[in-house]
Amino acid sequence: MSMPDKQAPAANQARGILFCPTASNADLLQEALEAARGDRPLWIWPDVPSPEKVACLVAFRPPPGVFEGLAALRLVHGVGAGVNALRDAPGRPAGVPLCRVVAEELDQGMAQHIIHAILRETRDHRLYDEQQRARIWKRLTQRHACDITVGIMGLGALGLATARPLRQLGYNLVGWSRSRKSAEGIESFAGPAEMGTFLSRSDFLVVLLPITAETHGILDATALSKLPRGAVVVAVGRGGQVDEAALLAALDSGHLSHAHLDVFETEPLPADSALWAHPGVTLTPHIAASPHPLAVARLVMENLSRIERGEPPLHAVDEARGY
Amino acid sequence: MSMPDKQAPAANQARGILFCPTASNADLLQEALEAARGDRPLWIWPDVPSPEKVACLVAFRPPPGVFEGLAALRLVHGVGAGVNALRDAPGRPAGVPLCRVVAEELDQGMAQHIIHAILRETRDHRLYDEQQRARIWKRLTQRHACDITVGIMGLGALGLATARPLRQLGYNLVGWSRSRKSAEGIESFAGPAEMGTFLSRSDFLVVLLPITAETHGILDATALSKLPRGAVVVAVGRGGQVDEAALLAALDSGHLSHAHLDVFETEPLPADSALWAHPGVTLTPHIAASPHPLAVARLVMENLSRIERGEPPLHAVDEARGY
Repeated sequence: MSMPDKQAPAANQARGILFCPTASNADLLQEALEAARGDRPLWIWPDVPSPEKVACLVAFRPPPGVFEGLAALRLVHGVGAGVNALRDAPGRPAGVPLCRVVAEELDQGMAQHIIHAILRETRDHRLYDEQQRARIWKRLTQRHACDITVGIMGLGALGLATARPLRQLGYNLVGWSRSRKSAEGIESFAGPAEMGTFLSRSDFLVVLLPITAETHGILDATALSKLPRGAVVVAVGRGGQVDEAALLAALDSGHLSHAHLDVFETEPLPADSALWAHPGVTLTPHIAASPHPLAVARLVMENLSRIERGEPPLHAVDEARGY
Repeated sequence: MSMPDKQAPAANQARGILFCPTASNADLLQEALEAARGDRPLWIWPDVPSPEKVACLVAFRPPPGVFEGLAALRLVHGVGAGVNALRDAPGRPAGVPLCRVVAEELDQGMAQHIIHAILRETRDHRLYDEQQRARIWKRLTQRHACDITVGIMGLGALGLATARPLRQLGYNLVGWSRSRKSAEGIESFAGPAEMGTFLSRSDFLVVLLPITAETHGILDATALSKLPRGAVVVAVGRGGQVDEAALLAALDSGHLSHAHLDVFETEPLPADSALWAHPGVTLTPHIAASPHPLAVARLVMENLSRIERGEPPLHAVDEARGY
């Protein structure tokens, strides 16, 4: 009676979850999955006694060979907004949905990170820290938000969650995306033709793009040269979107005044990278936004149940678009 | 024909403005007043050739003796949200309205300052700065905003302007004020009876009160002891509201984890203050919020015109309440 497009019996019996603890908050994620799994088996890589019983793989950066033997896999689930490491992993079975995490706290975390960087520069807090160390009481002329424009590249959920509080704090906003988006209080630019104008308006450039073939290296020397003199770059999308050599050259020439970098061409950032000690660089180890572990665990369980009920999972990656 | 309650002819002829350049942005303020004055005379203290022609005094901290000879004074105008230095100045003539500056960018500036301090602590940026100096790539477990409560003492325009973006960034909010205020998304507490409960809920305590006899020393050792262990204090109202000795003791004992201080019992902060080099203190020289110089100049001209037309000026201080 079985139809060829239905799952094989083995797949129907596979209810297990395999978690690869490579993310920074792996302990908390594992704990949250443990609490949310119900009667589903949960295995922690590399301890996979019955690979044929794994229905769902949960990972940030999948270990080599992790897909081998997962004959009944029905869902591959990321643990953050970006799933490029999973998307590009060798051996990932075609036709199995790949889902990313969309969660309010993830948006908020990203907004927090970006706004901290913008406030730190516009309100001169690096200079005030130096003055404190030297016991100097000196007020610097306050730059007012109404005189500053923040440009946001990438107007998805994260970009919009960042724009709202920035607008309330008084900053002018311009945005750029692949296709035109309309959002209240943001002057929108779209596509390659309008990128130069967008860049020329951005005193602060927030790079919040998904990583695709089109966005890799999008901020090269030519693009950076279109920013106003003294601009600040805040890079939080994925490494490789900002050309690091071009960025360093623009900082050294004084064209850019500072950069806040959370993502890098190579991660972890190599110990001999010139970025670590450059006075124009503030860097963080890819921590801008991680969703709450409980929210990740809830979403994984929800998506696995949806697939078992024959419903489409939430936040599946569009394989053609790449995100 | 003149009636006794009308201004004397001398006062009607006095149209001049006297500006005391003691604030940090005095140059910019002077420039803005110069541009906005129209045909009114503008004198810069101490150069006052015709004190009897001064209709309006503009100052942050009035120099001693500044009120002498200002027989036709009709308006005393501050240059920021707080006017306690003017309010308490010896020789200030009774019955002459004292106005403070209320401006959207002032609210936004205050919100920016407070939010920077909160993000810096909740997102571990001081630790990440140290890691960068040591070339350490290590992700710390992210504290999520939904697990953190910010307590705002003082729910005036500045407090509310700060609450809105904080709520969008995901933080829980409680508020305390003299009389109960109702504001969306803020659990409100009021009066001395509810202060203890408010403090016990505040992982971050933002002190944003006006300085009056009631608020001086309001955060003494007893009050600070009611904060949760590990709390952070952000002081931006006026110096003297937080007892500095009690604060240092609470930092040293580990009860408080950090303090961001912008206002002090004595300003400028004396060079020998223990606050400068305390590892638990980040300090700034009273720069949280200054209004845009153009907005100050506009408001001064508007208020002077209103008084000349017999209308009440905007943002006059309630002398009984003190702010």
